Parts: sequence; structure tokens; C-alpha cells
Amino acid sequence: MGATKSEAGSLRVGIVGAAGYTGAELLRLIHRHPKLRLTWVGAQSNAGKRLDSVLPSTLGVAGVGDLVLEAFDVADAPALAQQLDVAFCCLPHAQSAKVVASLVAQGLQVVDLSADFRLRKPEDYAEWYGAHPAPELLDRAVYGLPELYRTELVGAQLIAAPGCYPTSAILPLAPLLRAGLLELAGPIIVDAKSGVTGAGKSPTSGTHFPETSEGIRAYKVAGTHRHTGEIEQELSLAAGAQVSVVFTPHLVPMSRGILSVAYARPKAGVDVERCRAAAREMYPSAGLVSVLDQQLPDTLWVRGSARAHVAYQLDPRTGMLLALGAIDNLTRGASGQALHALNVARGWPEHLGLPELAQFP
Amino acid sequence: MGATKSEAGSLRVGIVGAAGYTGAELLRLIHRHPKLRLTWVGAQSNAGKRLDSVLPSTLGVAGVGDLVLEAFDVADAPALAQQLDVAFCCLPHAQSAKVVASLVAQGLQVVDLSADFRLRKPEDYAEWYGAHPAPELLDRAVYGLPELYRTELVGAQLIAAPGCYPTSAILPLAPLLRAGLLELAGPIIVDAKSGVTGAGKSPTSGTHFPETSEGIRAYKVAGTHRHTGEIEQELSLAAGAQVSVVFTPHLVPMSRGILSVAYARPKAGVDVERCRAAAREMYPSAGLVSVLDQQLPDTLWVRGSARAHVAYQLDPRTGMLLALGAIDNLTRGASGQALHALNVARGWPEHLGLPELAQFP
Amino acid sequence: MGATKSEAGSLRVGIVGAAGYTGAELLRLIHRHPKLRLTWVGAQSNAGKRLDSVLPSTLGVAGVGDLVLEAFDVADAPALAQQLDVAFCCLPHAQSAKVVASLVAQGLQVVDLSADFRLRKPEDYAEWYGAHPAPELLDRAVYGLPELYRTELVGAQLIAAPGCYPTSAILPLAPLLRAGLLELAGPIIVDAKSGVTGAGKSPTSGTHFPETSEGIRAYKVAGTHRHTGEIEQELSLAAGAQVSVVFTPHLVPMSRGILSVAYARPKAGVDVERCRAAAREMYPSAGLVSVLDQQLPDTLWVRGSARAHVAYQLDPRTGMLLALGAIDNLTRGASGQALHALNVARGWPEHLGLPELAQFP
Amino acid sequence: MGATKSEAGSLRVGIVGAAGYTGAELLRLIHRHPKLRLTWVGAQSNAGKRLDSVLPSTLGVAGVGDLVLEAFDVADAPALAQQLDVAFCCLPHAQSAKVVASLVAQGLQVVDLSADFRLRKPEDYAEWYGAHPAPELLDRAVYGLPELYRTELVGAQLIAAPGCYPTSAILPLAPLLRAGLLELAGPIIVDAKSGVTGAGKSPTSGTHFPETSEGIRAYKVAGTHRHTGEIEQELSLAAGAQVSVVFTPHLVPMSRGILSVAYARPKAGVDVERCRAAAREMYPSAGLVSVLDQQLPDTLWVRGSARAHVAYQLDPRTGMLLALGAIDNLTRGASGQALHALNVARGWPEHLGLPELAQFP
Repeated sequence: MGATKSEAGSLRVGIVGAAGYTGAELLRLIHRHPKLRLTWVGAQSNAGKRLDSVLPSTLGVAGVGDLVLEAFDVADAPALAQQLDVAFCCLPHAQSAKVVASLVAQGLQVVDLSADFRLRKPEDYAEWYGAHPAPELLDRAVYGLPELYRTELVGAQLIAAPGCYPTSAILPLAPLLRAGLLELAGPIIVDAKSGVTGAGKSPTSGTHFPETSEGIRAYKVAGTHRHTGEIEQELSLAAGAQVSVVFTPHLVPMSRGILSVAYARPKAGVDVERCRAAAREMYPSAGLVSVLDQQLPDTLWVRGSARAHVAYQLDPRTGMLLALGAIDNLTRGASGQALHALNVARGWPEHLGLPELAQFP
Repeated sequence: MGATKSEAGSLRVGIVGAAGYTGAELLRLIHRHPKLRLTWVGAQSNAGKRLDSVLPSTLGVAGVGDLVLEAFDVADAPALAQQLDVAFCCLPHAQSAKVVASLVAQGLQVVDLSADFRLRKPEDYAEWYGAHPAPELLDRAVYGLPELYRTELVGAQLIAAPGCYPTSAILPLAPLLRAGLLELAGPIIVDAKSGVTGAGKSPTSGTHFPETSEGIRAYKVAGTHRHTGEIEQELSLAAGAQVSVVFTPHLVPMSRGILSVAYARPKAGVDVERCRAAAREMYPSAGLVSVLDQQLPDTLWVRGSARAHVAYQLDPRTGMLLALGAIDNLTRGASGQALHALNVARGWPEHLGLPELAQFP
Repeated sequence: MGATKSEAGSLRVGIVGAAGYTGAELLRLIHRHPKLRLTWVGAQSNAGKRLDSVLPSTLGVAGVGDLVLEAFDVADAPALAQQLDVAFCCLPHAQSAKVVASLVAQGLQVVDLSADFRLRKPEDYAEWYGAHPAPELLDRAVYGLPELYRTELVGAQLIAAPGCYPTSAILPLAPLLRAGLLELAGPIIVDAKSGVTGAGKSPTSGTHFPETSEGIRAYKVAGTHRHTGEIEQELSLAAGAQVSVVFTPHLVPMSRGILSVAYARPKAGVDVERCRAAAREMYPSAGLVSVLDQQLPDTLWVRGSARAHVAYQLDPRTGMLLALGAIDNLTRGASGQALHALNVARGWPEHLGLPELAQFP
Repeated sequence: MGATKSEAGSLRVGIVGAAGYTGAELLRLIHRHPKLRLTWVGAQSNAGKRLDSVLPSTLGVAGVGDLVLEAFDVADAPALAQQLDVAFCCLPHAQSAKVVASLVAQGLQVVDLSADFRLRKPEDYAEWYGAHPAPELLDRAVYGLPELYRTELVGAQLIAAPGCYPTSAILPLAPLLRAGLLELAGPIIVDAKSGVTGAGKSPTSGTHFPETSEGIRAYKVAGTHRHTGEIEQELSLAAGAQVSVVFTPHLVPMSRGILSVAYARPKAGVDVERCRAAAREMYPSAGLVSVLDQQLPDTLWVRGSARAHVAYQLDPRTGMLLALGAIDNLTRGASGQALHALNVARGWPEHLGLPELAQFP
């Protein structure tokens, strides 16, 4: 958007951990955002290199590819806080909390894309991740799912951008739980399928092309995936009661996208139209969640978009309800949602600068 | 296997509907089977063409690519029965039953890969497919899942090769149901993910590369997929009680493979080792089902193989059991299993001629 | 971009043939363009349907998904010209020329994405496509490759957006030919590899997922692909002499992207740095072509971007030069370039509204 | 094949380096070969582990998955030679030569899948790989391309299995060069496209799924890929004159397969039928190379097969000839061809035990 954009973007933005996939997606989205201007990028192993030598997709893009990745230590926080208005933090958990704490202490507004500030209770964090490095900040963090925390986000200094799997499961289920439409006696089953970018940028044998293409597998099943806690927390808050979840993630041979299918038992008398109505009420048509009617979502329809698709189907033979959610794990599930939350926090139009139309096909 | 094989293969085999995907896979498998010799191929729209002009993968393969696809009508059954010892029938349902009936009436041994003889009761068939074209044959058909019907298959004249989805779900669940390890109060949820060959050879917008690659979607959910009835029938027979199933098929951007994850509640006191033990008892190590221990199955590990992988995991947080099954939908789920059943029916070694090692990667 | 955009976008835009892939890509790009406002969409077989029922990626996007596809006949041109400032035409060749002629006659500015106005001479068109339906317009059309026709495009009423393959081959070769660096005695070999969206939206057996995934094939080789004429025309104009081309297109199992590798013999004394210098001169850093140095281009680095990557390598063993070009066939190769040309035609900043950063990965 | 096979397979076979991709493919093929019995598997980093813990595709396959990978040092050669009749060596170059030398010295028949014995002259090896570790063996090695060295292979003790790229280029070109149909004044251009298994089993950022899927790139172009020397050697021997080659490898987002398109200028008066006739003469219909007529090859048609497809097209506009070759890089390009050569060396039927029909689709 060069010309017009560079005039308009007045808020100085930095990304700590810019060379990973969520960082790369932030670069793409910030570049088209009319209020933001990228002025600083940080990295660890790649510090000192030009961004375009690490991310060749930025080759030739003035103001992006020519930035030099800078090392960052918590001791640098005061200096960095002078240069920026907002920092996005794309670091691994635990490591992120320390950096975030150093920046927040300087008064900087921070959007954290790690898991460090998503769980509200230190003991929950301890269960899934270990001792929390900065528990004193937990109360100040706002969970960055705008559809659930629109009010709380306004003016927030510390935003915890949600996990990709939780986003895909919470969006279809929250309206039903808020409206009290589901039986909570048994667990809700969330069978989720993700593209491989969700595994991050570091190559492993599990993401090596010949052993990923043409195959599908489940992994970290039966309550061992860390997103289980985050999903349960938010569903329980939506329900006002404890919700337990069986969460099964899968790796699908595609780069982007998550499709979650949740299985739950509706309360007596609740039909599928009632479920759709609850979703439409929570997600008005002006927002970034589309409630499908008869159609079933396809991750391809939201690839590269900040929009989520949710849908509901009732199995008449068994009475079970299916609640489906499809997102792009990077755009909606991470970086796009981080910007979405920032828009709300700053009081800007919710979808400002965000891609609403998928890159289809 | 040319030289050695052509001497050994003495049973004359024909394929009705050889130009489709299950037909093509049969060609590959029959070609390496030491007891079989392909002598006749039939097709409808392609009748009169050489096989290698329709399936270029057969170009240059003597005895295969140079066969000419012949038209077939039920009136031709007596003549065909003279030329063959076994016929495989790869036609669409309903259409298949008529052809099968005409061949069975001539005393030919038939393995039917359609859905026409899988459901035991005409009323079940009617529910999912319409009025049965040859209900009088239902009693004579044996469901061709050798692990469940090894005894019944011996000498069978009419074998109904199971559906691909049912195979992937029945194999992991049947041992648990036979051993009475599962609660049957609620439905079992079967969330299954299939490669695109399962949709057949005819191109549609839903299987067009740009709208299939890089996306995942569920389809025919909530009790609308026809395999639901077949799964319920076999699980109920295994349990000796009515089992209901919520079946959710997905299309995954890969050509081959099905992974099914079934969610069920075990009876009190049943742990995961008990489940694995039941499976190992039903599937001895000499057979074509591998019971995994801690590993989770990947369809890539069975691609091109007649082998199935099953695995079990218990979620300690909710008490729910996951029973997973991975197969190649064409090799195990259709054509390979058809040959497997024929091996048993003929009294040959069970895995004779079948690929046991995946084409990996 | 909702809020900000809808205020800014004042030029009324229509798309004839909006339901195909180039149409869908135009929707995505127009939606983020600050000067354009989509007000009309036309289609043939889908006329009367809401856009989001045909393109579910538009579901919930206000001002796009809720548009109704309208039938269009040349008789409707006067009425349509009243409603629009610019029309993009995404119809098959021959069919397009008639529609374009009807709109141009009404004074409307038209960007044609078909092949109808790319070849300058009616006899060239006849050789590849048949008799030209509107030869009188050929002189008025400007070939919409801004890097070559920046001056000619200013104020153009009829813009012929280039073909995807030609774009990928002309961009790396034109600077060398303009600078007279290549021997033209023998043909230039252009070995090009394309994603499957290049084949369009209609499903065929050649684009059926199971027969496209996991395989690569050449097609329409040896001077039979229609883009050969377009490539030769533009290379000859750049060289000021007749250039002949051996053009070999391939279908690659990916949705988007074209990589072209051209093989040519440089004149005596021309080294690779001289070639890169020629490219850098023609493509200054502010533009939408990046000249790579030691790196080799990857279509993944430009996926979803209007940017092209070009690179040069000299084989010291044989003296042959490789000129490589990578583009997204839809964004740069078709729809994005169409907007790019419109920007130049209208005197706007060249990259206004265009995605410069790839959707990576 | 269990029962029948284990009786028949009497030759004891070992694989050094069994855990890589060419090793895994050998396992699959040896398992179905009627004359061979796998009795020993060696590995380096995985020594001491059961094969099925490293290659889960062997889980449950008796006689394969339960083998334990053994460490191997050249000092173990005498002992190993006692246990085996044939050894396949799947080690990296340079490392392989030492192991091969130790086994050959014990009188064992060895098929080496590395590059170490493919180049005939030590100075050629030095140019591409460094000083040769066992130059004294070069004269004893036979290049394992049966179509070219059928006579020389009979009785060979040391077979150098060809590289995958060279196989795909030599097969279509050798008949033309032997028959003297091509001009050799300029270089032959070989533009080759490979699946990712060609890069081996070790994960790298260049083979990480998200950076491989949905993109195509050339690599090691302009005379820097080591297979260039091997291609030139064999083409020159076929021509009886020096042939120079411009070799351009590409990485394609698929697991298996290589398509090579070679561009050459035929001598005056040579038409395409003359080229096809030369190929049909060299590759009789009973062999493992199919000469296509009008069809263009697709790697999908030979996936998992030991068969190669070659085809020829003449560009009437420029007079250039295209010679195309399609293979499976693992089955034909490496492991299957190694077995093929062994069949010839042992005097068995050429295609004994080899898959001739692709796993399609």
C-alpha cells in the first residue's frame, strides 16, 4: 500500500521474534494496516541480519525487507520503549513472559502471542507449562478474543493473543455455553485438525515434507496437549460452570488452517436453529465471524483471512450436536487476531486493516 | 513379477469396472498375486479401449495394459462365467447388485466392492440406498472383513467387501465391543478423515485440485453418510447389542488413507492396557492388523499396504477412551481387503500376494 | 479494510465473470484498494445467485458476499456503462472481445483479462485463437505489463492484462533483450512450471486431486501452447528483432505460482553481473519486481503478492545463461497485474492497494 | 507374501544404512522378491533399535520390523560376509566407498547406492566429490543401468546403482545418442523436477513442509549439482563423443517422482518418429522402459514402479527436440533399479520381483 499507507501509519510498532511464522504474518498484516508503521524487528539467532535474508518473501519491500533484526535483552527494554508505541511479542512461552514484563514495566503496550498470559490462574499455568515467570501480571492481561472480551480489551496495556486451537473451538462453542444450551454432565469432545505451520518454523522429522505430505495423524491426544487448559478455561467462563474437554489435535498435510469439530449434547428441546440463533446474536453480521447456515465450513474459505466460520448440525439419530469452527491458524488464530484485539484496545474500527476475504483458492 | 508369476497364477480373474480407482488398485495387486491371473476387464463408458489408454500407469505392462476393456451386460453372464474363476465387481451400488446376481446365478465366485451386499437386512439397505435389487442374495453374502468373519468366509461364493470408512472404524472398535469393555448408553463418536481417492475417479468441484489442496472440510455429517448404517450394523453384531454411532467424515488433502478416531466411554475399571490386550487377542501378530502400543497411527505408515494400524489411548482427565484406526482406503479399505477375503475364502495363506509394507514415504 | 476503505473508494468497479478464479482474486484485491468500490458483479451460469453462494470465501463480507451475480449481454452495455467507472472482464477468449467491444464503445474503461487484446496483429491472433472478433480495437489496446508499457498505459481506455506464463518469462528476459545482451541465432528455451489454478475453475480429470497431487507433467509442449505467441511477440519487441521461443509448460501439484527458467546464450563478454545490472536498471527498487542476487527464486516467496522475483545465473561450463522468474499466477500473473496496470493508467501510485508481501508460508 | 515367499527367498541379503529412504524402499521391494531373504540390517545413529521403532511402516511385519539395526564398522566386514550373499549399501558418498571396499575384499557381492562408484575416472570423482577413497575399485564397478549395461552386469561383484536424476535423463537421451541422431555442437539442456524424498530423510528448512508445499524452486543450478558429471559421462559414452549438459534440478511439492525434459537439436532430417524408433529398438516391449507415443509422461503413472516412461516431441517452429523421462526416484531411480541390476547380474528374469504397476493414484 506504500504511498497512502506510509503517510497514514503513525503508530510505531515493533515485533520481538519477527523471523518466525507468526512474526512473518504480522509483517504482512501490519504492512497493510493504515494506522501502524513497522519500525523495529527483533530476533535471537538471526540478530544482525537483514530481514530479507531470513524471510525472502520481504525481498524488495521497502521498509520491511531492509530492516535489520536486532538482538533484544530485557535490559534493552527502556530504550526500546522509547522507540515504540506497541510491541508484538512472538517468543516461546516462559521466555516471552520475561520480555513482556520488562516492556510492560516501561509502560509500553504489548500484545503477547505466546501462551504466557492466556491462563488466568498461576496454578493452571503451572499444570501445563511450569512455574509462571511473571504471575503478578496475570491480572492485568486481557484475553485477546475480541468477540468475548470486547469491553475488557478497550485500553488494555497487555493483551494475551489466544492460541490457534482454542480460537477454533471457543468461537463455535461460546455462544451455546453462554446461552446455556448444552448439557455439561459429560465432556465436550473437540476433534481438531491443523495445518503444519502450527508446528512452527523449526524443521523436525514430524514436519519433514516426505513424512507429512500424504498422511494424517493425531498427536498429543488424551489430555496431553497444552491448549486443553486454555479451551477449558474459556468454555467454563462462558458457561459459568466447569466444562471439561477431550481435545484431539491432528496434523493435516496443508500449511494453514484449523477445522475443529466439537461434539456436545444439547439440552432437551434445543434444536439446531436455536444454536445458530445464539451464534448470530453473539456474532453480528458486521463482525469477523460468519455463522453458516446449511453449509459446512472449509478452511480454504478463510485462508489468509481474519474471519472465522462457524456452523452447527444436529444428528437426529443420536441427538448429538456438532459445532464446527474453521479459521486460518496464522491470520485468525494468531497474528490477525492480535491486530484485531489491538484495534479494539485502541478504539479503532474492529476490522481496520484486516484481510476479510480469503486468498482463495 | 512377470516370469515367475505368470506360471504360478492359475486362477482366471476378471474385473467388472476396471477403469475406476478400486479397479486400478486391483490390477496392481492381482499382478503380484501368485495364484491369480487377470484375463478379463470390463468397463462401461470406456468399453472398446485398451486399458493403457484409460490407465496410463499400465503402459507397457504386458498382460495388463494391452487388455481391451469389454462391455458387459447381465445377458453376457453365462459367457463370462465360462471364462473366469473369480469376478471382482467395482460398480456403483444398485447397478452392482444386478451384475453380481447374474454372475452368481452362473455359479461364479464374486467379490463385490460396492455397498450392495454389506447390509444384512433389506430394510437397512432401503434406509440408506433405496429398494434392494437382489434381496434374495443377502443371506448368501459374507461380509468380507477377514478379522471378523474368517470362518464364514471359507468357501464363500459371494463376498461383500467392506466400505473404507467402516473398515477403519470397525477394526479398532470390534475387539472392545466383543470383550464387552465399552458403555453403550450413549453413542460412539467416529471422527474420520479420508484421502480424496475415496470420492472416486469422476472429477467434481469438490475434488478439483485448487479447491481440495490446502483445505480440510467435513461433509455428510450428522447421520447423513451412508456408511453410518454399515458401521452400526457391524459394531452392534460385535457387541451383541445395539450400538449407535455419530459418524463424521472429512476430506483431507491427500490421495490415500483414512484415519478414524473413535470416542467411547469404557466400563468402570477398564484401563487402556485391557483394551490393547483385547485387540492383541483378536489380531494375532501373524495377521494384517498391527496393534500399536504408545505410538499413534499415521496413514503414511500404511499407504499402499493391506495392513491396518490400531491404537488406544485413555484420557485420564475425562475417562474417555480413544480408539484409532489407520488404513489405506484403497489397499486395505477396498481392493486389498477384497483379495484378503478371497485368500481366506479359497483357503490360501491369509496374506498371500498382499503388500504388507507401505510404500513409505 | 471496511471503515477507512469504504470512504476512500470512490471509483465504481464491475467484474464481468466474477465467479472464476481471476474474478475471485480481483474481489480480494479490490476490497483492499483505497480508490475502488465494487458495485457490480456479472456471471453467466450463476446469474441470479448471491456471490457468497458461489464463492463461500465471501460469506459474511459486507458489500461483497451479498452482491447478486447478474447476467450480462452486449445489449446491456449502455446501462452498465452508466453504473460503472471501470470494468474488469474475466471471460474466455473470443467471448471476451465481444463484451469488451460493447463496453468500450460506451466509453467505459475496460481491463480485459482474456487473451483477446494481447496480440497486436490480427494474423497472430488467428494463428493461435482463430479469427479476431474485434480487430478494430487492437490498436487501442495497451499490453498491461507496467514495467514495459508504463508510458503507454497512462490514460489507456482498454488494457490487455498479460497472460500468466508470459509475465513470468518476459519479466526476466526483457531487460536482457532491451540491452542487447543475448545471442538470438537459436531459440530461447522457456521451461515453465505452473500451479493448478492456471487451469481455471472447471473440474477436469487433469485437475482432479488424486490425479494431480503427487505428480508432475508437461503439457501442450513443442509450440502448441497459445502463450507461445504472446511471449515471442513481447520478447521480439524488447529485442527489436525476431525472437523465437521453445515453450514448455508444466502442471505442478500446488494451487498458485509459476516459475519460469529461460535458457539463452549471452553475447561474448556478457557476464551474469551485467545481466543483473540490466534488470536492476529496468526494475528500480521502488517497483514491484525484485532482482535477486545469489538467491534462486521460489514461488512461495511471492504467493499472494503482486511482486515478481527475477534472477540470473551463468553456467560456466557451457556458457549458457539462466534467467528465472517467479510470480503468483493469479496475483501478479492476472488480477493483481490488472490492478497494477489500472493504477498506472489512472496516474495513481503504482503499487496502490496491491499486496507486496507474500502470504508466507 | 509371507508363506510362499519365505520358502522361495534363499539368497541372504543385508542392507547397510537401512533406516534411510532408499533403505526403506529396499525393504519393501526385497520383501516381495521371490529369491531374496532379508537377514541383516545396519544403521549408524539408530544401531541397537528395532527397525519398527525407526520405520513404523514395518510395525507388525514379521521378519522385517522385528530386526534389530546393527552397528557396522569396516572391521566387521569378514564376519558380515559370512552371513550374507549380497549387501546393499545405502550410505553417504565417501563413507560408502570404505564400507564397500571392506565388503568386496571379502568376496561379497555389493550393490552400492551412493555416488562412489558411478564415475569411472578418479579425476571426475575428485571434481565433484573430492579424493576418491578407493580408486582401485573403480575398474571393477559396473554402472547399474541395465538398459545400457546388460552384458557388463552379468556376474558383476560390484554394482554402482545410478543416481536418480541421471536415470531420468539418460534413459530418454541414450537411444538418440547411440543412434547418432543429435547435434552435439551445443550443450543439451536438462530441466529436471524432483519430489522431496530425493533430498533424503534429514529434516532441513528447505524440506520443512510449510516451506516446501505450495512452492517450486530450482536449486544448485548452472553446473553446481553433482549429478551433472554423471549425466555427462553416460551421455558421452552413449554418443561416443563429448556431450556437455546444462543441468537444472528443481524441488517439486510431492514426495516421489522425477520428470526430466531434455532439449537438444536433432541432426538434419531426423524427425520425431525416428527418435521414437531408436528408443523402441533399445527398449523392447518386454523390458522396464515404456516408450510413449503421443502421450506425455506423468510421474504419477510410475509412482512406486520400477518402470520408466520416455517420450519425444519435436517443436516444428524451432526444430528443437524434447526428450522426456519420468521415473519414481526411489523405485526406479534408486532401490528398484538396484534390484533390477542384481537380477541381471544373477541371471534372473530382469523384472523378477519388481513392481511394474504404479501405485496409482
